[in-house]
Amino acid sequence: MRIVPISEDECRELLQRVPFGRLGCALNDQPYVVPIDFAYEPEHLFVFSTAGKKVEWMRQNPKVCVQVDEIGNWSNWTSVIVTGTFLELREPQYTGQREHAREQLAQSSKWWRIPLAERREPIEDLAIEPVFFRIDITGMSGIRSIPEAE
Amino acid sequence: MRIVPISEDECRELLQRVPFGRLGCALNDQPYVVPIDFAYEPEHLFVFSTAGKKVEWMRQNPKVCVQVDEIGNWSNWTSVIVTGTFLELREPQYTGQREHAREQLAQSSKWWRIPLAERREPIEDLAIEPVFFRIDITGMSGIRSIPEAE
Repeated sequence: MRIVPISEDECRELLQRVPFGRLGCALNDQPYVVPIDFAYEPEHLFVFSTAGKKVEWMRQNPKVCVQVDEIGNWSNWTSVIVTGTFLELREPQYTGQREHAREQLAQSSKWWRIPLAERREPIEDLAIEPVFFRIDITGMSGIRSIPEAE
Repeated sequence: MRIVPISEDECRELLQRVPFGRLGCALNDQPYVVPIDFAYEPEHLFVFSTAGKKVEWMRQNPKVCVQVDEIGNWSNWTSVIVTGTFLELREPQYTGQREHAREQLAQSSKWWRIPLAERREPIEDLAIEPVFFRIDITGMSGIRSIPEAE
Protein backbone atom coordinates (compact mmCIF):
# COMPACT_ATOMS: atom_id res chain seq x y z
CA MET A 1 0.00 0.00 0.00
CA ARG A 2 1.13 3.51 -0.78
CA ILE A 3 -0.15 6.72 0.74
CA VAL A 4 -0.40 9.79 -1.45
CA PRO A 5 -1.64 13.34 -0.97
CA ILE A 6 -4.86 14.29 -2.74
CA SER A 7 -5.65 17.62 -4.34
CA GLU A 8 -7.69 20.34 -2.69
CA ASP A 9 -10.45 19.66 -5.22
CA GLU A 10 -10.55 16.04 -4.11
CA CYS A 11 -10.70 17.17 -0.47
CA ARG A 12 -13.67 19.41 -1.29
CA GLU A 13 -15.45 16.61 -3.12
CA LEU A 14 -15.12 14.39 -0.06
CA LEU A 15 -16.48 17.13 2.23
CA GLN A 16 -19.44 17.52 -0.11
CA ARG A 17 -20.09 13.78 -0.30
CA VAL A 18 -19.56 12.87 3.36
CA PRO A 19 -21.28 15.39 5.63
CA PHE A 20 -20.10 13.70 8.79
CA GLY A 21 -16.80 13.79 10.64
CA ARG A 22 -14.97 14.31 13.89
CA LEU A 23 -14.45 17.74 15.36
CA GLY A 24 -11.31 18.38 17.39
CA CYS A 25 -11.02 21.25 19.82
CA ALA A 26 -8.48 21.93 22.56
CA LEU A 27 -8.14 23.80 25.83
CA ASN A 28 -4.95 24.16 27.86
CA ASP A 29 -3.20 21.68 25.56
CA GLN A 30 -5.85 19.00 26.14
CA PRO A 31 -7.52 17.92 22.88
CA TYR A 32 -11.13 16.74 22.72
CA VAL A 33 -12.82 14.96 19.80
CA VAL A 34 -16.53 14.43 19.06
CA PRO A 35 -18.55 13.23 16.07
CA ILE A 36 -20.44 15.93 14.16
CA ASP A 37 -22.68 16.39 11.16
CA PHE A 38 -22.00 19.40 9.03
CA ALA A 39 -23.08 21.16 5.88
CA TYR A 40 -20.15 22.07 3.67
CA GLU A 41 -19.81 25.22 1.63
CA PRO A 42 -16.58 26.29 -0.04
CA GLU A 43 -15.35 28.48 2.82
CA HIS A 44 -17.32 27.11 5.77
CA LEU A 45 -18.75 24.16 7.59
CA PHE A 46 -22.11 24.75 9.29
CA VAL A 47 -22.93 22.71 12.37
CA PHE A 48 -25.94 22.29 14.60
CA SER A 49 -24.93 20.91 17.91
CA THR A 50 -25.89 20.55 21.51
CA ALA A 51 -24.33 22.69 24.20
CA GLY A 52 -21.70 21.08 26.33
CA LYS A 53 -17.98 20.71 26.75
CA LYS A 54 -16.99 21.18 23.12
CA VAL A 55 -18.91 24.43 22.80
CA GLU A 56 -17.58 25.74 26.10
CA TRP A 57 -14.05 24.93 24.93
CA MET A 58 -14.47 26.45 21.46
CA ARG A 59 -15.80 29.66 23.01
CA GLN A 60 -12.47 29.91 24.85
CA ASN A 61 -10.25 28.63 22.03
CA PRO A 62 -11.78 28.94 18.56
CA LYS A 63 -9.05 26.94 16.78
CA VAL A 64 -10.58 23.68 15.59
CA CYS A 65 -10.08 20.89 13.11
CA VAL A 66 -12.49 18.51 11.41
CA GLN A 67 -11.41 15.10 10.14
CA VAL A 68 -13.55 13.37 7.53
CA ASP A 69 -12.93 10.02 5.91
CA GLU A 70 -14.18 7.25 3.69
CA ILE A 71 -12.81 3.91 4.79
CA GLY A 72 -13.33 0.75 2.76
CA ASN A 73 -10.68 -1.36 4.43
CA TRP A 74 -7.13 -1.02 5.68
CA SER A 75 -5.73 -0.46 2.21
CA ASN A 76 -8.54 1.54 0.69
CA TRP A 77 -9.32 4.82 2.39
CA THR A 78 -9.27 8.58 2.04
CA SER A 79 -8.93 11.05 4.90
CA VAL A 80 -9.28 14.81 4.86
CA ILE A 81 -8.35 17.27 7.58
CA VAL A 82 -9.78 20.76 7.71
CA THR A 83 -8.42 23.39 10.06
CA GLY A 84 -10.57 26.37 10.90
CA THR A 85 -11.98 28.87 13.33
CA PHE A 86 -15.13 28.51 15.38
CA LEU A 87 -17.77 31.22 15.10
CA GLU A 88 -20.97 30.90 17.09
CA LEU A 89 -24.02 32.09 15.18
CA ARG A 90 -26.20 33.31 18.00
CA GLU A 91 -27.33 36.71 16.87
CA PRO A 92 -30.49 37.42 14.88
CA GLN A 93 -28.30 38.50 11.97
CA TYR A 94 -27.51 34.81 11.43
CA THR A 95 -31.12 33.65 11.07
CA GLY A 96 -30.71 33.43 7.30
CA GLN A 97 -27.56 31.33 7.58
CA ARG A 98 -29.25 29.09 10.12
CA GLU A 99 -32.15 28.39 7.77
CA HIS A 100 -29.79 27.83 4.87
CA ALA A 101 -27.65 25.42 6.88
CA ARG A 102 -30.69 23.55 8.08
CA GLU A 103 -31.79 23.01 4.49
CA GLN A 104 -28.29 21.92 3.48
CA LEU A 105 -28.06 19.47 6.35
CA ALA A 106 -31.48 18.03 5.55
CA GLN A 107 -30.44 17.48 1.94
CA SER A 108 -26.93 16.27 2.38
CA SER A 109 -27.30 13.74 5.11
CA LYS A 110 -29.64 10.90 4.32
CA TRP A 111 -29.96 9.78 7.88
CA TRP A 112 -30.39 13.27 9.26
CA ARG A 113 -34.16 13.18 9.49
CA ILE A 114 -34.81 15.26 12.56
CA PRO A 115 -32.57 18.16 13.46
CA LEU A 116 -31.83 16.96 16.96
CA ALA A 117 -29.90 19.96 18.00
CA GLU A 118 -32.78 22.25 17.21
CA ARG A 119 -35.25 20.38 19.38
CA ARG A 120 -35.75 21.64 22.85
CA GLU A 121 -36.81 18.55 24.68
CA PRO A 122 -37.53 18.11 28.35
CA ILE A 123 -34.73 15.65 28.80
CA GLU A 124 -33.76 14.54 32.25
CA ASP A 125 -30.62 12.69 31.29
CA LEU A 126 -28.62 15.40 29.58
CA ALA A 127 -29.78 18.89 28.82
CA ILE A 128 -29.94 19.52 25.10
CA GLU A 129 -29.57 23.18 24.26
CA PRO A 130 -29.28 23.96 20.58
CA VAL A 131 -26.13 25.69 19.38
CA PHE A 132 -25.48 26.74 15.81
CA PHE A 133 -21.96 27.49 14.68
CA ARG A 134 -19.82 27.97 11.62
CA ILE A 135 -16.27 26.81 11.06
CA ASP A 136 -14.40 29.23 8.83
CA ILE A 137 -11.96 27.08 6.89
CA THR A 138 -8.33 28.19 7.06
CA GLY A 139 -6.69 25.13 5.51
CA MET A 140 -7.28 21.61 4.29
CA SER A 141 -5.29 18.59 3.20
CA GLY A 142 -5.98 14.97 2.45
CA ILE A 143 -4.33 11.63 1.87
CA ARG A 144 -5.42 8.47 0.14
CA SER A 145 -4.22 4.90 0.14
CA ILE A 146 -3.37 3.10 -3.08
CA PRO A 147 -3.44 -0.70 -2.89
CA GLU A 148 -0.28 -2.50 -4.01
CA ALA A 149 -2.02 -4.01 -6.99
CA GLU A 150 -2.46 -0.68 -8.74
CA MET B 1 -34.16 10.50 20.98
CA ARG B 2 -32.54 10.75 24.37
CA ILE B 3 -28.84 10.83 25.13
CA VAL B 4 -27.61 9.12 28.27
CA PRO B 5 -24.20 8.52 29.81
CA ILE B 6 -22.91 4.95 29.76
CA SER B 7 -20.93 3.23 32.49
CA GLU B 8 -17.18 2.85 32.47
CA ASP B 9 -17.68 -0.88 31.93
CA GLU B 10 -19.69 -0.16 28.80
CA CYS B 11 -16.96 2.22 27.62
CA ARG B 12 -14.37 -0.51 28.08
CA GLU B 13 -16.50 -3.04 26.21
CA LEU B 14 -16.70 -0.67 23.25
CA LEU B 15 -12.93 -0.13 23.26
CA GLN B 16 -12.46 -3.89 23.26
CA ARG B 17 -14.97 -4.44 20.46
CA VAL B 18 -14.01 -1.53 18.18
CA PRO B 19 -10.23 -1.25 17.84
CA PHE B 20 -10.42 1.81 15.64
CA GLY B 21 -10.96 5.48 16.40
CA ARG B 22 -9.79 9.03 16.00
CA LEU B 23 -6.80 10.38 17.84
CA GLY B 24 -6.76 14.04 18.82
CA CYS B 25 -3.58 15.89 19.67
CA ALA B 26 -2.88 19.61 20.00
CA LEU B 27 -0.03 22.08 19.74
CA ASN B 28 -0.24 25.79 20.54
CA ASP B 29 -4.02 25.51 20.93
CA GLN B 30 -4.42 24.01 17.44
CA PRO B 31 -6.10 20.58 17.55
CA TYR B 32 -5.34 17.85 15.00
CA VAL B 33 -7.32 14.64 14.44
CA VAL B 34 -6.36 11.47 12.59
CA PRO B 35 -7.80 7.94 12.31
CA ILE B 36 -5.93 5.24 14.21
CA ASP B 37 -6.06 1.54 14.96
CA PHE B 38 -5.28 0.53 18.48
CA ALA B 39 -5.09 -2.46 20.79
CA TYR B 40 -6.91 -1.84 24.04
CA GLU B 41 -5.81 -3.04 27.45
CA PRO B 42 -7.37 -1.85 30.70
CA GLU B 43 -4.92 0.98 31.32
CA HIS B 44 -3.49 1.59 27.83
CA LEU B 45 -4.06 1.83 24.13
CA PHE B 46 -1.21 0.55 21.96
CA VAL B 47 -0.76 2.10 18.54
CA PHE B 48 1.46 1.44 15.54
CA SER B 49 1.65 4.48 13.41
CA THR B 50 3.64 6.26 10.78
CA ALA B 51 5.84 9.19 11.64
CA GLY B 52 4.54 12.60 10.77
CA LYS B 53 2.76 15.60 12.16
CA LYS B 54 0.80 13.82 14.87
CA VAL B 55 3.90 12.14 16.29
CA GLU B 56 5.89 15.38 16.15
CA TRP B 57 3.09 17.14 17.98
CA MET B 58 2.64 14.44 20.63
CA ARG B 59 6.36 14.49 21.35
CA GLN B 60 5.92 18.16 22.26
CA ASN B 61 2.54 17.88 23.97
CA PRO B 62 1.71 14.36 25.21
CA LYS B 63 -1.90 15.15 26.16
CA VAL B 64 -4.16 13.27 23.77
CA CYS B 65 -7.68 11.97 23.40
CA VAL B 66 -9.14 9.08 21.42
CA GLN B 67 -12.76 9.03 20.31
CA VAL B 68 -14.35 5.70 19.39
CA ASP B 69 -17.89 5.08 18.25
CA GLU B 70 -20.44 2.68 16.87
CA ILE B 71 -22.94 4.47 14.69
CA GLY B 72 -26.01 2.72 13.31
CA ASN B 73 -27.94 5.81 12.35
CA TRP B 74 -28.72 9.26 13.70
CA SER B 75 -30.72 7.88 16.62
CA ASN B 76 -28.72 4.76 17.36
CA TRP B 77 -25.11 5.35 18.34
CA THR B 78 -22.60 5.10 21.13
CA SER B 79 -19.52 7.29 21.50
CA VAL B 80 -16.65 6.96 23.95
CA ILE B 81 -13.91 9.48 24.67
CA VAL B 82 -10.65 8.47 26.28
CA THR B 83 -8.17 11.05 27.55
CA GLY B 84 -4.60 10.01 28.07
CA THR B 85 -0.90 10.63 27.81
CA PHE B 86 1.34 9.75 24.88
CA LEU B 87 4.40 7.61 25.57
CA GLU B 88 6.66 6.65 22.69
CA LEU B 89 7.98 3.10 22.97
CA ARG B 90 11.30 3.40 21.23
CA GLU B 91 13.72 1.75 23.61
CA PRO B 92 14.66 -1.95 23.53
CA GLN B 93 12.95 -2.36 26.89
CA TYR B 94 9.64 -2.08 25.04
CA THR B 95 10.27 -4.94 22.60
CA GLY B 96 8.00 -7.22 24.62
CA GLN B 97 5.18 -4.69 24.62
CA ARG B 98 5.63 -4.16 20.91
CA GLU B 99 5.27 -7.88 20.18
CA HIS B 100 2.30 -8.13 22.51
CA ALA B 101 0.57 -5.17 20.89
CA ARG B 102 1.24 -6.54 17.44
CA GLU B 103 -0.48 -9.80 18.38
CA GLN B 104 -3.39 -7.92 19.93
CA LEU B 105 -3.81 -5.76 16.85
CA ALA B 106 -3.67 -8.78 14.57
CA GLN B 107 -6.38 -10.49 16.60
CA SER B 108 -8.67 -7.61 17.32
CA SER B 109 -8.97 -6.00 13.95
CA LYS B 110 -10.34 -8.23 11.23
CA TRP B 111 -9.14 -6.03 8.42
CA TRP B 112 -5.73 -5.45 9.92
CA ARG B 113 -3.91 -8.03 7.84
CA ILE B 114 -0.57 -6.38 7.35
CA PRO B 115 0.93 -4.15 9.99
CA LEU B 116 1.46 -1.18 7.74
CA ALA B 117 3.31 0.88 10.24
CA GLU B 118 5.91 -1.79 10.73
CA ARG B 119 6.78 -2.08 7.10
CA ARG B 120 9.71 -0.11 5.86
CA GLU B 121 8.89 0.45 2.26
CA PRO B 122 10.79 2.42 -0.32
CA ILE B 123 7.94 4.82 -0.85
CA GLU B 124 8.43 7.90 -2.92
CA ASP B 125 5.15 9.56 -2.13
CA LEU B 126 5.31 9.83 1.63
CA ALA B 127 7.99 8.40 3.83
CA ILE B 128 6.58 5.74 6.13
CA GLU B 129 8.65 5.40 9.27
CA PRO B 130 7.21 3.09 11.88
CA VAL B 131 6.44 4.53 15.29
CA PHE B 132 5.09 2.55 18.21
CA PHE B 133 3.43 4.32 21.10
CA ARG B 134 1.24 3.77 24.11
CA ILE B 135 -1.53 5.99 25.40
CA ASP B 136 -1.77 5.77 29.17
CA ILE B 137 -5.45 6.25 29.95
CA THR B 138 -6.25 9.00 32.44
CA GLY B 139 -10.02 9.15 31.99
CA MET B 140 -12.93 7.94 29.91
CA SER B 141 -16.59 8.68 29.42
CA GLY B 142 -19.27 7.69 26.97
CA ILE B 143 -22.76 8.54 25.81
CA ARG B 144 -25.41 6.58 23.99
CA SER B 145 -28.58 7.48 22.15
CA ILE B 146 -31.89 5.91 23.04
CA PRO B 147 -34.54 6.02 20.30
CA GLU B 148 -37.86 7.57 21.26
CA ALA B 149 -39.66 4.29 20.87
CA GLU B 150 -37.92 2.71 23.87
